[in-house]
Amino acid sequence: MKFKIEGTEGAARAGAVELPRGSFLTPAFMPVGTQATVKGLSPEELRELGFRVILSNAYHLYLRPGHELVESMGGLHKFMAWDGLALTDSGGYQIFSLKGMIKLTDEGVTFKSHLDGSSHFIRPEDSMAIQRAIGADMVMALDECPPGDSDRIKLEAAVARTAAWLRRCRSVSLKSHQTLIPIIQGGTDREMRRRSADLTLEMDFDAHALGGLSVGEERGAMLDTVEFAAPLLPHDKPRYLMGVGMPSDILDAVERGIDMFDCVLPTRMGRNAAAFTSRGRINLRNAAHARDDSPIDPECDGACCRNFSRAYVRHLFMSGEIMAARITSFHNLAFYARMMALARKAILENRFASFKRDFEAKQNNGGVNE
Amino acid sequence: MKFKIEGTEGAARAGAVELPRGSFLTPAFMPVGTQATVKGLSPEELRELGFRVILSNAYHLYLRPGHELVESMGGLHKFMAWDGLALTDSGGYQIFSLKGMIKLTDEGVTFKSHLDGSSHFIRPEDSMAIQRAIGADMVMALDECPPGDSDRIKLEAAVARTAAWLRRCRSVSLKSHQTLIPIIQGGTDREMRRRSADLTLEMDFDAHALGGLSVGEERGAMLDTVEFAAPLLPHDKPRYLMGVGMPSDILDAVERGIDMFDCVLPTRMGRNAAAFTSRGRINLRNAAHARDDSPIDPECDGACCRNFSRAYVRHLFMSGEIMAARITSFHNLAFYARMMALARKAILENRFASFKRDFEAKQNNGGVNE
Repeated sequence: MKFKIEGTEGAARAGAVELPRGSFLTPAFMPVGTQATVKGLSPEELRELGFRVILSNAYHLYLRPGHELVESMGGLHKFMAWDGLALTDSGGYQIFSLKGMIKLTDEGVTFKSHLDGSSHFIRPEDSMAIQRAIGADMVMALDECPPGDSDRIKLEAAVARTAAWLRRCRSVSLKSHQTLIPIIQGGTDREMRRRSADLTLEMDFDAHALGGLSVGEERGAMLDTVEFAAPLLPHDKPRYLMGVGMPSDILDAVERGIDMFDCVLPTRMGRNAAAFTSRGRINLRNAAHARDDSPIDPECDGACCRNFSRAYVRHLFMSGEIMAARITSFHNLAFYARMMALARKAILENRFASFKRDFEAKQNNGGVNE
Repeated sequence: MKFKIEGTEGAARAGAVELPRGSFLTPAFMPVGTQATVKGLSPEELRELGFRVILSNAYHLYLRPGHELVESMGGLHKFMAWDGLALTDSGGYQIFSLKGMIKLTDEGVTFKSHLDGSSHFIRPEDSMAIQRAIGADMVMALDECPPGDSDRIKLEAAVARTAAWLRRCRSVSLKSHQTLIPIIQGGTDREMRRRSADLTLEMDFDAHALGGLSVGEERGAMLDTVEFAAPLLPHDKPRYLMGVGMPSDILDAVERGIDMFDCVLPTRMGRNAAAFTSRGRINLRNAAHARDDSPIDPECDGACCRNFSRAYVRHLFMSGEIMAARITSFHNLAFYARMMALARKAILENRFASFKRDFEAKQNNGGVNE
């Protein structure tokens, strides 16, 4: 993995990541395709929207259809007909979200499948073997992801175990096109974040992720942690903030030096009739849109807004039609793609601060927030 | 509406229909978009598949979002961003499917909405006003559609009422681009079909539909009725067999002189994992496809089969993903589009009989029927 910084403004960076099978520009948003599909969208549509990297989930693909099956079908990219790049999350976050259903030791984690209750034991080495088989370009280390309200003792243990597991992840060889990315833990505790960063940097990686954020802590604490932790990570390597988030969170994190993002919100909210617009979020089920022949967002140049009115999309939601989810998920991803492209351009032109201020003012004062 | 017959083979015809806002080739299949959307597919995809006419439903659009709303949004085409042609069913079939929930008089029909139980009274004149507002290119008369097992007395009454209502439908002026199409009733009773045809032909229309078939009667009785009734209708005008059907039914009806078809099966079955292929129907949830990296149908040249394997689509179905329905509905409509295009070409080249024989032999002997 190569990373070139093309411009900075304060801590914010505009860059380009090069990988053996392709490249992408940063700051970058990665749509989430948990089960080897970004819910409701075709690979062509993702490309049309300008996305070059999608995120999929090793935990889910391991359970169904099975990582060996994905490998035997030519790997994740071929399986889902995606000619861009992919990143797989290790499953740490998903497994630790199972709460009462897991048993954790230094050796690995035992959990029960959310699909059928079957019991599984996964060590860091297994996570690597699974992700090797799936074949994404970027592969996340297996980490221990404690709850957002964990005390120092819990965080300390998680940081230590995450580092020990990282060492074991690193000992497994991946495919030649794959890059392993470590995850920094430590909750919102600065000392723990620093310790996790120190333990990780000892090992030398091409990119670094901040995990264990956006897991229930306050927004201010999340941003403080990003602001504190980002500069602990090498300037010349991409920084990835996992699972964040809302548009304003992303811009705040870009401002603090983050380069990569993923989040289920644009598609999940889209399926639930919530659309992002340049003037704030709207709920397309709202009766106010019943006779509104304007597009979801007049500033969106996607097929969603060239073709369809709010009145029509509302009708589709009220009628339980698949196209409702399709159009709104597409639109929300178009919103994210445009926001990232505009943010990048603004950094390169040294006007990110004013871009961000204007963007947020418009979001909050559009008068149509619902 | 103009109709030109470009070739015949026996009773089968290949033609072209010209309407003020566009034209289409026959025999033609019209995908069903009951609620102003063909479930799961975008207008662009329908066009890409070669469809030029879609069917929507006045009954459903009247109840939700309301025909006045559709009209105020510029009519059905603009509302759903469909630049092709559209036909609306009057709602007769849907209303009479409500069974116990209707009350019928010569004046009109009172029914309770399937959405909220609200009571509605619709006369033939109302159906025309509704369809006028919706604005489809072809508009179906409001008919009485009795159950498939109705006795002579019931059929006789339905035929008489359908003709009386047709006269009232005809008295309502539509928009200049709209064509009214009458529906011949009479069940599988030849005398009743003849009477219904006679009563209809007195009035002189540009196209004719056969209704009240594929409503529970045996397949043989349905085909016998088509074979008997099609020649009762003018040779030089399009004949439309409503709600039929399976691929083999369609080819059998083309052979008997039918030009237009609609059916929910390709999309409904697609959503339920049933895929039409050149070698018979398959169920994509079947474990046999779990590791099958071949396309749904190797003879399909759609994006569905260029991009995705059976193994992948099965995974999407097992995972409850929207893309499963999207891909399989798209594929099934691609199958129907190709079948219609091949049938038309075969008629023009005077080899429809052998095309049909080969097509059906392959369907039945593919060895993969499930």
